[in-house]
Amino acid sequence: MEIADWRKKIDELDEQITALLNQRAAAAVEIGKIKLQNTAPIYEPKREQQVYDHVRAANSGPLTATEVQDIFERIMDVMRNKQKDRQ
Amino acid sequence: MEIADWRKKIDELDEQITALLNQRAAAAVEIGKIKLQNTAPIYEPKREQQVYDHVRAANSGPLTATEVQDIFERIMDVMRNKQKDRQ
Repeated sequence: MEIADWRKKIDELDEQITALLNQRAAAAVEIGKIKLQNTAPIYEPKREQQVYDHVRAANSGPLTATEVQDIFERIMDVMRNKQKDRQ
Repeated sequence: MEIADWRKKIDELDEQITALLNQRAAAAVEIGKIKLQNTAPIYEPKREQQVYDHVRAANSGPLTATEVQDIFERIMDVMRNKQKDRQ
């Protein structure tokens, strides 16, 4: 396969990743609404650590566990801000 | 649905996202090998902009285009370093 073929594959993967990130955001917004009703804090470091532990365990490579966590740290930043925006 | 139910759904989504990120990384590593053969540069700002334009266009919300790009900027950082590591 040439670079153009790999990039076509990457573009398709990116569309799927984008769709899943949006499903994740929709779920995070629902959690934010429940937290607001319960006056629970948006930032829950224990839950965030669970998320990182979960994806590190689910990771089968070639990304390292650290690389997966790096990406999920940005995902969590975005999701946390999204929950705050809705409040 | 309660917070625990939403979190179960998020955990499932995170497993899928992790799997797709690894497929993306595998493709990026293959591109890195071809670039090495062709002595082409790893950092290609035009291609990176294409990736952002593509995911912004594919985005259907609730994430904003800026939020999707924020996440993909981290993904691209990780992928670029991964290509470099293999050279």
